[in-house]
Amino acid sequence: MSDQTIESARRCVSPGSFDPITMGHLDVIERAAKLFDEVIVAVVYNPDKKGTFSPEERVELIEKTVAHLPNVRAQAFGNRLVVDVCREVDAAVMVKGLRDGTDFSYEMPMAQMNTQMTGVETFFMAATPAVSHYSSSLIRVCAQHGADVSKMVPPPVLEPLLERMRGN
Amino acid sequence: MSDQTIESARRCVSPGSFDPITMGHLDVIERAAKLFDEVIVAVVYNPDKKGTFSPEERVELIEKTVAHLPNVRAQAFGNRLVVDVCREVDAAVMVKGLRDGTDFSYEMPMAQMNTQMTGVETFFMAATPAVSHYSSSLIRVCAQHGADVSKMVPPPVLEPLLERMRGN
Amino acid sequence: MSDQTIESARRCVSPGSFDPITMGHLDVIERAAKLFDEVIVAVVYNPDKKGTFSPEERVELIEKTVAHLPNVRAQAFGNRLVVDVCREVDAAVMVKGLRDGTDFSYEMPMAQMNTQMTGVETFFMAATPAVSHYSSSLIRVCAQHGADVSKMVPPPVLEPLLERMRGN
Amino acid sequence: MSDQTIESARRCVSPGSFDPITMGHLDVIERAAKLFDEVIVAVVYNPDKKGTFSPEERVELIEKTVAHLPNVRAQAFGNRLVVDVCREVDAAVMVKGLRDGTDFSYEMPMAQMNTQMTGVETFFMAATPAVSHYSSSLIRVCAQHGADVSKMVPPPVLEPLLERMRGN
Amino acid sequence: MSDQTIESARRCVSPGSFDPITMGHLDVIERAAKLFDEVIVAVVYNPDKKGTFSPEERVELIEKTVAHLPNVRAQAFGNRLVVDVCREVDAAVMVKGLRDGTDFSYEMPMAQMNTQMTGVETFFMAATPAVSHYSSSLIRVCAQHGADVSKMVPPPVLEPLLERMRGN
Amino acid sequence: MSDQTIESARRCVSPGSFDPITMGHLDVIERAAKLFDEVIVAVVYNPDKKGTFSPEERVELIEKTVAHLPNVRAQAFGNRLVVDVCREVDAAVMVKGLRDGTDFSYEMPMAQMNTQMTGVETFFMAATPAVSHYSSSLIRVCAQHGADVSKMVPPPVLEPLLERMRGN
Repeated sequence: MSDQTIESARRCVSPGSFDPITMGHLDVIERAAKLFDEVIVAVVYNPDKKGTFSPEERVELIEKTVAHLPNVRAQAFGNRLVVDVCREVDAAVMVKGLRDGTDFSYEMPMAQMNTQMTGVETFFMAATPAVSHYSSSLIRVCAQHGADVSKMVPPPVLEPLLERMRGN
Repeated sequence: MSDQTIESARRCVSPGSFDPITMGHLDVIERAAKLFDEVIVAVVYNPDKKGTFSPEERVELIEKTVAHLPNVRAQAFGNRLVVDVCREVDAAVMVKGLRDGTDFSYEMPMAQMNTQMTGVETFFMAATPAVSHYSSSLIRVCAQHGADVSKMVPPPVLEPLLERMRGN
Repeated sequence: MSDQTIESARRCVSPGSFDPITMGHLDVIERAAKLFDEVIVAVVYNPDKKGTFSPEERVELIEKTVAHLPNVRAQAFGNRLVVDVCREVDAAVMVKGLRDGTDFSYEMPMAQMNTQMTGVETFFMAATPAVSHYSSSLIRVCAQHGADVSKMVPPPVLEPLLERMRGN
Repeated sequence: MSDQTIESARRCVSPGSFDPITMGHLDVIERAAKLFDEVIVAVVYNPDKKGTFSPEERVELIEKTVAHLPNVRAQAFGNRLVVDVCREVDAAVMVKGLRDGTDFSYEMPMAQMNTQMTGVETFFMAATPAVSHYSSSLIRVCAQHGADVSKMVPPPVLEPLLERMRGN
Repeated sequence: MSDQTIESARRCVSPGSFDPITMGHLDVIERAAKLFDEVIVAVVYNPDKKGTFSPEERVELIEKTVAHLPNVRAQAFGNRLVVDVCREVDAAVMVKGLRDGTDFSYEMPMAQMNTQMTGVETFFMAATPAVSHYSSSLIRVCAQHGADVSKMVPPPVLEPLLERMRGN
Repeated sequence: MSDQTIESARRCVSPGSFDPITMGHLDVIERAAKLFDEVIVAVVYNPDKKGTFSPEERVELIEKTVAHLPNVRAQAFGNRLVVDVCREVDAAVMVKGLRDGTDFSYEMPMAQMNTQMTGVETFFMAATPAVSHYSSSLIRVCAQHGADVSKMVPPPVLEPLLERMRGN
């Protein structure tokens, strides 16, 4: 145990594409904000792939959503390994929500390689049941077809999402 | 975010029956010891069920195993909910290793109920690949049949385990 | 398609041990009650195994819980195959809630054998997210240790459960 | 329980891309046809993606396949949410076959969102073992390479599929 | 690669409790018998646990079932690790049928420990779909309640099973 | 059992895209080489999709990697079903490594269809724990971002991979 690692372990990264942030993402961020000195919400994205929102827009929507959490901030990182983001912001861990066992099966090899390569650890948290079925992709499909998604995204996201889906 | 929670979040509980501690358990404990100020290895057990080692023996084997980790200590808690153990030692989180998705499927409902009832969170970590297949129960079966388990348990556990399996 | 089968298909069996009925069970029963003419909640049990509540007590707790649902009734069936219960009450289908993929892996072979042997079908429904983590066994453990389970069981179950857990 | 819902619950939608219908699809449709007054096989498709068969061809192949089932009909619905299809044809439930737990893990969040947004329920049925390994995509690959797929697709599909695979 | 291992690899062990042998077991044995010079069906059992059939009866039922397969023989091994059985009969591999991913999750750690401890390998084969839902335990329950299990067990097993279930 | 099949069963195919071969692939190949007279590593690929290495380069990297295994050879097969490759090289089985239950869920239907169509069997082996988290795709991503992948690929692959990732 080194003092340096312990210090870095008080800061965590919550990575994702957040296109857009959902009530499921917010759940994980709020719970992490109670346990870490600082939470960096890292918007990672593939610069070659156009999303529904631009990385800058996603950061803005996250910032409006987490305005009540003083120890949370959002930042976009293009085409970067999440472990590199962790080292850049000096965080020893990343935090991820899991919806079920299949989710973990998908995440496990990446987490194992990240620890092996860099020592950065991943803490997985079970999604809060009431929001465990939300995902950005399903919500986009629903919004696109005019379904009511008002309970699935944080209030600051609703209008921009509906507008985007109307073709703007 | 309250200062109290943040403070408690620097302490974690690593719960299990540890009958006996394996190289898989040690992996999780060592990684947690790098990230938390203090790790309490909590031996939880059913007083009505006789194990291979008594709770006191399990604690002793853990203490010998983690002697190189100054911020780790072990303690036995009979017939207690792990969340109650967490509150007793003022730890905001427990840490658990996961071997695969089926493992998580089993753990998820308990973690969700724990958070809902008490706010205590569970951080799941992916087992380090090289030790991800070890479990106390499989190791006991192997030792009982005379198989070589010397790489599966920490050095202080080997002799006591073999002796116990010879019927002492 | 025979008229007889179609007729029987308007009646369904919701089987389980219901020791005791939880908010998760109630969720499935309420949803089934909207879709079938009649729902028979079948308490199946092993006469050799003592539960927390007797089969008669479980039926009584279910009946109090579903008093607002005129097309639902409860009945105990000792040591019976659920498919036999279905035939006795002339129901062509049984309805079961699923919490995740592991749940389905466990249920699938039984459902397949039931259909093959008798033609009785099983309709699986995804648990409503907010109650998807409740199970009678976890709730019993929580109640036994004095945790707050008031949101996990229907109101008529709370007092009897707490009393039972205090040793009565 | 409203009479209206109960009435709609006698009609179900069996959705899919059906490119083409397989013996696995037919299994679910035949079992549903015994239990519902009416089964609407809904061909849903993405208009931007060219399949092996056009939506109209898929409907025609389904209709030939289910000619012996008087209460089954097929219809194509482009770029529509299945819940919207359900409401358009006034069906309170959709029926889906499941091949294993991973299948359910994939389907669960969609089913949960559909119920939450519209009240439309999904009944999952375990695939009949003998056909549980068939999927349109695997069958297309096999047919493309000249493998014998005559037991995997209903008789009316075989010739058109082989012809299409020869490049017509 | 040693000639010795290659030689041993032409012999395989198909382990299980076989209480009694099912059509699912027979499927794996028949497929293995086409691929190995010799297949030893190993009845492993816990001497402290009374089964439906005694180990000797299980061996007898297997032998009647595989009478058409000249390179298959059955033998009972009490309270033994399967890897020890493999070494005793000089087989480099064991063969196991899998019904789904959850099955594999359960088997994987044992297979990994077996290879690590002894070099004995496990070949897993996907169950043939039509019999993938059969298990001795489910079949026993069905037979006990008078259900028709004639398609689930090999012909030589049917009468003895029904007789046993009638209490003899 | 025919002598022909038994003969073919002493030869196996280890199929994959091998873009490039990893320590995980090598683990399966080495273990198979101890158990079969001959192992054919089959590079299967879609001619329409450009990989990181060409099929010829992949074969070359495999051959350098398995130079110490006299009974292993590599060959590229474009746009072919693996079962056809098996028949072409007269192998009765293919061998595949599995990392977890989700892996098997994905592979199972293909294996079942292959056996049904051609009689070619698939033997699944549990990945050796220490390499069970490696996959070509994750390794490519890591290498691309400058992470240390020297323990993840066989020595002959390291330089070519790094060079390719630098854009050559």
